[in-house]
Amino acid sequence: MKVVIIGGVASGMSAAARLRRLDEQAEITVYEMSEHVSYANCGLPYFVSDVISRRDNLLLQTPDALWNRFRIKAKVQHMVTAINREAKTVEVKNLATGKITNDTYDKLVIATGARPRKLDVPGIERALWLRNVTDADSVKQALQDAENKTVAILGAGFIGIELAENIRHIDIPVTIIQRSNSILGQFDPEMVQPLQAKLEKHGVKIILNAEADHITKDQVVLKDGRKIDAGLVFTAAGVDPDNSLAKAAGLKIGSTGGLWVDDQQRTSDPNIFAAGDAVEKHGQLTGEQTLVPLANLANRHGRLIADVIAGREVRAHNATGTVILGAFGHAVGITGLSERAAKKAGIAHEIIHIHPNNHAGYYPGSKRLSMKVLFDPLTGKILGAQANGEDGVDKRIDVIATAMHGGLTIDDLMDLELAYAPQFGSAKDAINIAGYVGNNVFNGTTPTVQWHQLEAARANGAQVVDVRSAGEHGFANIPGTVNIPVEELRDRLSEIQVEDVVVYCQVGQRGHIATQILKANGAKVRNLDGGYLTWAAGMESLAH
Amino acid sequence: MKVVIIGGVASGMSAAARLRRLDEQAEITVYEMSEHVSYANCGLPYFVSDVISRRDNLLLQTPDALWNRFRIKAKVQHMVTAINREAKTVEVKNLATGKITNDTYDKLVIATGARPRKLDVPGIERALWLRNVTDADSVKQALQDAENKTVAILGAGFIGIELAENIRHIDIPVTIIQRSNSILGQFDPEMVQPLQAKLEKHGVKIILNAEADHITKDQVVLKDGRKIDAGLVFTAAGVDPDNSLAKAAGLKIGSTGGLWVDDQQRTSDPNIFAAGDAVEKHGQLTGEQTLVPLANLANRHGRLIADVIAGREVRAHNATGTVILGAFGHAVGITGLSERAAKKAGIAHEIIHIHPNNHAGYYPGSKRLSMKVLFDPLTGKILGAQANGEDGVDKRIDVIATAMHGGLTIDDLMDLELAYAPQFGSAKDAINIAGYVGNNVFNGTTPTVQWHQLEAARANGAQVVDVRSAGEHGFANIPGTVNIPVEELRDRLSEIQVEDVVVYCQVGQRGHIATQILKANGAKVRNLDGGYLTWAAGMESLAH
Repeated sequence: MKVVIIGGVASGMSAAARLRRLDEQAEITVYEMSEHVSYANCGLPYFVSDVISRRDNLLLQTPDALWNRFRIKAKVQHMVTAINREAKTVEVKNLATGKITNDTYDKLVIATGARPRKLDVPGIERALWLRNVTDADSVKQALQDAENKTVAILGAGFIGIELAENIRHIDIPVTIIQRSNSILGQFDPEMVQPLQAKLEKHGVKIILNAEADHITKDQVVLKDGRKIDAGLVFTAAGVDPDNSLAKAAGLKIGSTGGLWVDDQQRTSDPNIFAAGDAVEKHGQLTGEQTLVPLANLANRHGRLIADVIAGREVRAHNATGTVILGAFGHAVGITGLSERAAKKAGIAHEIIHIHPNNHAGYYPGSKRLSMKVLFDPLTGKILGAQANGEDGVDKRIDVIATAMHGGLTIDDLMDLELAYAPQFGSAKDAINIAGYVGNNVFNGTTPTVQWHQLEAARANGAQVVDVRSAGEHGFANIPGTVNIPVEELRDRLSEIQVEDVVVYCQVGQRGHIATQILKANGAKVRNLDGGYLTWAAGMESLAH
Repeated sequence: MKVVIIGGVASGMSAAARLRRLDEQAEITVYEMSEHVSYANCGLPYFVSDVISRRDNLLLQTPDALWNRFRIKAKVQHMVTAINREAKTVEVKNLATGKITNDTYDKLVIATGARPRKLDVPGIERALWLRNVTDADSVKQALQDAENKTVAILGAGFIGIELAENIRHIDIPVTIIQRSNSILGQFDPEMVQPLQAKLEKHGVKIILNAEADHITKDQVVLKDGRKIDAGLVFTAAGVDPDNSLAKAAGLKIGSTGGLWVDDQQRTSDPNIFAAGDAVEKHGQLTGEQTLVPLANLANRHGRLIADVIAGREVRAHNATGTVILGAFGHAVGITGLSERAAKKAGIAHEIIHIHPNNHAGYYPGSKRLSMKVLFDPLTGKILGAQANGEDGVDKRIDVIATAMHGGLTIDDLMDLELAYAPQFGSAKDAINIAGYVGNNVFNGTTPTVQWHQLEAARANGAQVVDVRSAGEHGFANIPGTVNIPVEELRDRLSEIQVEDVVVYCQVGQRGHIATQILKANGAKVRNLDGGYLTWAAGMESLAH
């Protein structure tokens, strides 16, 4: 059997190596158009600033090593220019020599990845991007050589922000220009506001609700006329599936623009498989097709293709989507649906926000961790989670991603037995607290109001009471709210507007206690979810 | 309703606070025999060395604060000395005044915890232990005052090791004396060997297979006659449920010695509930009753008692048991069954060992993480996991604990979408790798042999081949094994004893490739699970 693989990075290389392990006889050829196979593309932004200083570290395999260990023929600087499905051949151009040849296949794997989204802006041709190691070399050189050492990045997605952090590490001024009203559109705004503050604190200028009108030789001119210094410009406005080859071959393209595959990664041609950023995935939560350009799924589905080609009866799991980003010591992570995405998909949801510690507060170095969890109001099934903080974000996101894979409910989070010693977690871990808080919302013990619903509640006549201490209230509060510390509440019930009252504290815990006290005394009461901290982050995100 | 709670730390305080939130009218009284309520007992070892320097930090609540916020009467230095179930009263002794009173209850909660196991060794009366803040004060003082500044710790369990680390932090010589043949009996020996090496590197002397015969005024004399300098002696040989009160009241005691409760934490008396270290739990994996003295379950079950008393229909989840320990920057964690426990319980299991990185190897600071996962040979269901390393142990153990809660299989681990950016994880996270490796074992792609089975395999005539590079083989290898690098294997098949061959590499990955090459060439071949690293850790653990 002869298998040709187009693209030698994540999914392509996973398919190739796995196939060799399952089939010692198969003839396996990988065509990769860049100069390297199996490079660490998620490391490229860190190479630019020398956080990753050794270029070798980015190169996980070489064609020689692949041949010696796996008998895989890996041909770099070889671009497949056409697929002939009837003849079962591919046309291949040697980019070094220009020579064109044809190769035959029994099975073909398309692993062409994604490419930076093209922006329709005059002057964009001088913009740089980061797709492979050669790009990273050029960017590094350009940053060194630039006379006008200022950078503008078009897009506040993952790559844009990682790039901004690394360019700040080498002390070059950076401006990020973002079309929408918040950074990292996968997240809800109040959950990325602390990251935005951190970026700004470290000198990254962020301009939201702005679009480039045109690019001059040393500036980006915005539609509103503002001019941004930019000796170098980067496009980082997301990626699009690189499926021109598949399109030309007449393979079915999905509604998302990604290459369509079945649950065995088979395209509309039974002899052609595909995986990675070029293909669309079936979304676990929405039930719809979706683009999830993530390395984890690319590797997993590449391996699965090999299993299928080798005759195994295996099927891909639907995609949830889990991502994390760290910059300047602050991390944000998400798995599953955001509030924004749930609303867009018309999926009913309850929401909780919590602000526990990453580990026991009594042990040195504990840090605040903020989490948001969405769950189904009827079944309690977890729909998604977001987290931010200096430490422990990855762990909590991974736990929730695993819980979602298992179909667990918000109540199950109470019962998870997680590793506790004071330097690692808490007797009631953040995850358990999410369960406790969610349980109270799920079964109606504590009705809540979201930060963005507070104004409407007040407009409807609700009294808003700060149940924190007088000192906390004096330090920062929601304007126009009265202060009755939870400890005094039982003695000051006469000051409460029992028909409609919203209570709040710093993170929501004392508000929960106050809610119970007031409920027991006949009030119609709601707790401000996530307390002052969530409200303040939300309002700050609106202020941009 | 009048509720009396005996014990004001984890489960007792959780029950009290939750009950107030569910019932504003209940009369709630907590009797605590020590001088403090709601103290951080897991922090006590760290207070001894001033890693936690502020004593206040250990005291999470005071009786005054509990009254002001929750209207809970918390009485410290009050010891319940008897329960009269017919009269529904408790007899209470004020330890400060000696005065004895009686109190009535409608519902009683027993949260008396556990006490250090008593050792039957002459001279043991001078031994110290750590159960509460007052103990920690005494220990701190004793370490300062001791003329003979040497310490012996009887027992290499969690508290013994945490104590040893902290005593080394203040530069006092420490010897741990352990009866069995490895530290931390919940773990398998090869999984804690690296921790033992780390402890020894930092000057903790560990004597295994040894028992104290008697204790003199400045030594511990072992049964084999060895004498251990010990100005101070600590007992840390595990804990026993502190249920003398419950016993005297005629409540049902389980076969484990823990207080028996149903799945609503109700004792054999319907008006008496119990939770925490005093009670036995129902083991999820073995189906048997078990003692799991952990703070997480104590808090959870305390909260559940309040729910039940308040009339809610809730039930406790069976216990899995998840623990972690860190010392000198090295962590070991476990959830579910060890190999030892599975064998003891007669539960069939497959095993994998892996040694991946905590995060992408190309990003600075990546560390090796060693994991062991047990799963059911028929269903693939995960039965337990252990991990050790400098970073990321807690995360992987928490993910597996969550997976087990959801009833996931070893194959599911392949599909978990975990948070990946190079500073947090890998495109194929350690968890995914466990899935991939486990999948190969589960479906028979790669048969394996465990480190402790290798000698038997050789005795049966198996050839053992090191498929690493010549350099690696030369550096350290399994004695008497031949070296054929995996890259040369296809050309040197004639050197392979095809009837029975075991291959090994450093961690198992190249061994897996070699296994496939040899299988395809007709050999009966097995891969040494976990490679040289697991074998070496296992052999080292036997050498003690």
